[in-house]
Amino acid sequence: MASDGKVRIGVIGAGRIGKIHIENLVYRVPDALVVAVADIDVENTQQWAAQYGIEKVVAEPKELINDATIDAVVICSPTSTHAEYVIEAARAGKQIFCEKPIAQKLDATKQALAAVDKAGAKLQIGFNRRFDRNFKHIRQLVESGEIGEPHIVNITSRDPAPPPLEYVKVSGGIFMDMTIHDFDMARYLTGSDVIEVYAVGNVLIDPQIKEAGDFDTAVTLLKFANGAVCTIDNSRQAVYGYDQRVEVFGSKGAAAAQNEAPTRVTVSNKDGVISDKPLYFFLERYMDSFAEEMNDFVTCVKANTVPPVTGEDGLQSLLIAMAAAKSAVENRPVKLSEIG
Amino acid sequence: MASDGKVRIGVIGAGRIGKIHIENLVYRVPDALVVAVADIDVENTQQWAAQYGIEKVVAEPKELINDATIDAVVICSPTSTHAEYVIEAARAGKQIFCEKPIAQKLDATKQALAAVDKAGAKLQIGFNRRFDRNFKHIRQLVESGEIGEPHIVNITSRDPAPPPLEYVKVSGGIFMDMTIHDFDMARYLTGSDVIEVYAVGNVLIDPQIKEAGDFDTAVTLLKFANGAVCTIDNSRQAVYGYDQRVEVFGSKGAAAAQNEAPTRVTVSNKDGVISDKPLYFFLERYMDSFAEEMNDFVTCVKANTVPPVTGEDGLQSLLIAMAAAKSAVENRPVKLSEIG
Amino acid sequence: MASDGKVRIGVIGAGRIGKIHIENLVYRVPDALVVAVADIDVENTQQWAAQYGIEKVVAEPKELINDATIDAVVICSPTSTHAEYVIEAARAGKQIFCEKPIAQKLDATKQALAAVDKAGAKLQIGFNRRFDRNFKHIRQLVESGEIGEPHIVNITSRDPAPPPLEYVKVSGGIFMDMTIHDFDMARYLTGSDVIEVYAVGNVLIDPQIKEAGDFDTAVTLLKFANGAVCTIDNSRQAVYGYDQRVEVFGSKGAAAAQNEAPTRVTVSNKDGVISDKPLYFFLERYMDSFAEEMNDFVTCVKANTVPPVTGEDGLQSLLIAMAAAKSAVENRPVKLSEIG
Amino acid sequence: MASDGKVRIGVIGAGRIGKIHIENLVYRVPDALVVAVADIDVENTQQWAAQYGIEKVVAEPKELINDATIDAVVICSPTSTHAEYVIEAARAGKQIFCEKPIAQKLDATKQALAAVDKAGAKLQIGFNRRFDRNFKHIRQLVESGEIGEPHIVNITSRDPAPPPLEYVKVSGGIFMDMTIHDFDMARYLTGSDVIEVYAVGNVLIDPQIKEAGDFDTAVTLLKFANGAVCTIDNSRQAVYGYDQRVEVFGSKGAAAAQNEAPTRVTVSNKDGVISDKPLYFFLERYMDSFAEEMNDFVTCVKANTVPPVTGEDGLQSLLIAMAAAKSAVENRPVKLSEIG
Repeated sequence: MASDGKVRIGVIGAGRIGKIHIENLVYRVPDALVVAVADIDVENTQQWAAQYGIEKVVAEPKELINDATIDAVVICSPTSTHAEYVIEAARAGKQIFCEKPIAQKLDATKQALAAVDKAGAKLQIGFNRRFDRNFKHIRQLVESGEIGEPHIVNITSRDPAPPPLEYVKVSGGIFMDMTIHDFDMARYLTGSDVIEVYAVGNVLIDPQIKEAGDFDTAVTLLKFANGAVCTIDNSRQAVYGYDQRVEVFGSKGAAAAQNEAPTRVTVSNKDGVISDKPLYFFLERYMDSFAEEMNDFVTCVKANTVPPVTGEDGLQSLLIAMAAAKSAVENRPVKLSEIG
Repeated sequence: MASDGKVRIGVIGAGRIGKIHIENLVYRVPDALVVAVADIDVENTQQWAAQYGIEKVVAEPKELINDATIDAVVICSPTSTHAEYVIEAARAGKQIFCEKPIAQKLDATKQALAAVDKAGAKLQIGFNRRFDRNFKHIRQLVESGEIGEPHIVNITSRDPAPPPLEYVKVSGGIFMDMTIHDFDMARYLTGSDVIEVYAVGNVLIDPQIKEAGDFDTAVTLLKFANGAVCTIDNSRQAVYGYDQRVEVFGSKGAAAAQNEAPTRVTVSNKDGVISDKPLYFFLERYMDSFAEEMNDFVTCVKANTVPPVTGEDGLQSLLIAMAAAKSAVENRPVKLSEIG
Repeated sequence: MASDGKVRIGVIGAGRIGKIHIENLVYRVPDALVVAVADIDVENTQQWAAQYGIEKVVAEPKELINDATIDAVVICSPTSTHAEYVIEAARAGKQIFCEKPIAQKLDATKQALAAVDKAGAKLQIGFNRRFDRNFKHIRQLVESGEIGEPHIVNITSRDPAPPPLEYVKVSGGIFMDMTIHDFDMARYLTGSDVIEVYAVGNVLIDPQIKEAGDFDTAVTLLKFANGAVCTIDNSRQAVYGYDQRVEVFGSKGAAAAQNEAPTRVTVSNKDGVISDKPLYFFLERYMDSFAEEMNDFVTCVKANTVPPVTGEDGLQSLLIAMAAAKSAVENRPVKLSEIG
Repeated sequence: MASDGKVRIGVIGAGRIGKIHIENLVYRVPDALVVAVADIDVENTQQWAAQYGIEKVVAEPKELINDATIDAVVICSPTSTHAEYVIEAARAGKQIFCEKPIAQKLDATKQALAAVDKAGAKLQIGFNRRFDRNFKHIRQLVESGEIGEPHIVNITSRDPAPPPLEYVKVSGGIFMDMTIHDFDMARYLTGSDVIEVYAVGNVLIDPQIKEAGDFDTAVTLLKFANGAVCTIDNSRQAVYGYDQRVEVFGSKGAAAAQNEAPTRVTVSNKDGVISDKPLYFFLERYMDSFAEEMNDFVTCVKANTVPPVTGEDGLQSLLIAMAAAKSAVENRPVKLSEIG
């Protein structure tokens, strides 16, 4: 850490999510200082970074990982590179924030976690939704016992429009790419581990998604160690926008989070009483949560505490995603123990 | 009362509201027995009444008023006849339910009340909205002290469409015809008397209403004896339907009643998140309250208790309506003591 | 039918639901005439029925089934007797309304349907929730194509409190007793048949329910012929009351029905912004739907049309319930074709 | 403007609101550069400002007003000094943002506006609520004609707790201090000028406020040039928090803004269905609007356009506040033409 107590950060990958993290680190995380960015497109990144007072831009992540003046790295490069950079960063003694997933493969994920473990590094995984004010509040209601023991969890998670087909092909499939966020949410809300998964996948929106070997609609059922059951319903296309709701039903009551919308205005006219559609997509809906997650990461590094989303959380969600994919193909409930 | 303990009722006037009362008395008020109906259109009324097992239909209300086998009359004839029938019914020893208003004139109203008083009769006035489940609940919240001392009351009361111009001309004006319900509501909710009125009347919907000497839009401010202030806003034309909401704000909280709608369904689509429009008009919205008011009237007669809406309540609302009309013309606050 | 065009009805069983049907038939179904009631407790039933002008009360249902002046029977006796009375009524040439389920066993159900079929009788099953104004509206939105092809259906159906243990023991289990309503709802909303079921049952509320061989919490997943998937979550104990919501998500939008509550009043105070709990239980929530279902049955009989809920609907829901129970025990998806 | 195109800003007064503006200018207004701050407490301000990279802190506002490198001043000093600094800044060729009100007196206000006019300076007044996303959306709905001609406007504006008595004494009274925001909102929403005011003031919360010569509860009725009527209800103490709602009712529909709350979570338990209280007070509710207003001011300066809230807007709201105060004392409608 610098003498001013700021955590000195290097960001690997300045694509869409990388830029968001940088902007938040600069403007909304007082204890962070972004000192360098690594991106293959050095020229454009330099120009962009200059606005934020960031002078050092390099092409090669390793240059940044091995920079002794840097305390922590934020890994936002393509998924296929995550595990490698996590391992190198751990070896280089860095604290690490890594976008989800660590890897699409179990082996790579476990190797990365082992390296982190060996180095005694901190590793926070980018499950940003945990930092959404609504879901955080529900987690607190569960944790404090206000709604009693959780019995049933319902998660609705629908995108406004399918990703490009090229993306679908490399995404790892809907469970790995999309539902994985909901798997983490389910674990977060209940505070319990998933032991078995049953998943149904359909192609109801675009036949090309079927050709690409994926589903566009999925319903997943999770069984938890504590007896709770969770349903998750996903669609790649909700014509009214990004639908992100959860409900936890417990022995003393239920807590439900409605969607967030651009305004709280309702218009009453001859067609009905009309409210806003939900915020369009994840950038709109989760913008604040991205800032919160960076803030928590930096706070952890500074205070030397355990990150709020650990490598183990990343691993568990991967296992659930793999079990779900297997379940959808084999049409049977799959135990997590079958995967690991 | 008949030996079976049922209150024997004669209904005067079988127009729209008369028919509603009869239907409710027959099907939803177990302690009532409708034994006769008086209506100028004997033939059609006979046919209609037969369905409800009512055999006696007469043209002349006095025949019914003087029928010794009848305990109570329900007066639903045109407003101009109310006072006369109230007086005759009181003299004939009947218990009386009379649609609002008793009369558009103060003298006639007072004479009717005097006759009722002299006869020791019960007189209930048809301010049916007091029996709406929502407003009743708010009244209970005020009465129990749950929201503390009432400080501010807001009433929104808008019709879906203006009445026919011919009706407007004989209606007594918007304050007497429409806002009078809100005046009674304001007194009911606060449990306090109005001492001063300031009203603004506009014609913003149909210039013909201006020619007819009336307003189609009105905002009224009431000052109560207990220090509370009430705003009432009226329009003859809310394109989204009948808008009937109230809010009471007090020292310990606020209680607000939203509109009732045909269903609790919301549709989310590319245009927004759409709920039902409010129930179209008073027949839809207040159907249950008409049954409740009849039930309460019959219960009062049977139990020999004071009606929930008295002749004095009718008089007070008339005085407020007259003060409002005067205020709108003279553009100044008018004390109720100026009217009486 | 009587010369006055009224459908002459005999009601078998005057317990709780029988009394509700009688009351609705008398007061809210103009085209019906209840001419006789069969109940083992003749004395009390006679006294009660007299209020509704029903003079004939018998102990023996067959007396009523064989009464040539009766057009239709409404069967509200214990479940174990349903099939027998359906068969006898069909043979006697009666039109039949039968509470759900026809029987807990498949054989008995099929025999009853065969008898009905042979007699050419009408048979309506008591899935009253189809007549709830909210669910009916959603069905219309699906049917009209307004929300496109249905992809996902979510049904939340939770009771306020578990039934007595003695009832649990003879109920046929949660899927047969409670979820069966949701199975019918799912078929009704989608207009499609269920082909496979996966169900999870838990005991999280009362261990005695486990001893009785039943579950108190259940999550069921249904696959439809048209590709849609439905989740149903059930609990025997929602501390905030009867939770009855459905959502249909389709290619053009989503339609969701919120709970109905005693009032639309919200109270804002130091504790929050507080709305009413849902209507307490099925009698409060579905009272109107019971009247609607009787009305539709009588209309069908009069107009000689197909009932809105057929014997086939009863059979299908039974098959789903049996598949769900099997699935919960065997922990695997069960095809309906395995049951039939 | 600096060569980098940034508007160079000096901030006068670094109290609560001054600090908010500085923080927003630094972090959320890319085109602004805060180059100096004037505050009587130089030492503490220096320390605070250093965090934001602001090096120049002076005690004397004039030093900053006469700094040739500064393009615009943001005046956040006590109200009594506003007019003087506006005049000096205008004379010094600066663009001006001034917190509301310019002055509590009409003369001082007019002198300030005349100086601004003479200098051809821009002057934006701090009616930040215009920049709230909800109210802005309603203004757009009115402006686009989507809800037709505005007929009735209802504004509810209640504070969570009264200010300290010492503040009340110098506040200029509730209409000048609190309702003035609502007056501006009413003008903003309708896009029309107020011609007459009728106001009722009460003391229902704290008798000491009466001793201080002020009201703690007020209801105001505004008549607009275009025929619309607006009601405003104010309380200094809503126990459930900051209540900030508006509704515009027009010939084609109504648009209403509900309160904003910390989360969209509802808890259903034995006490009811409970949502969050509104955001506690103006700092919570209007934080984004403060950033928006600064952004718009800087954009105006840069693009050389008319500010979204002009000196004339400040003057009009002052006139309405004066008319309201007069009306409350004299208990009669007061025309704005009586004040000017």
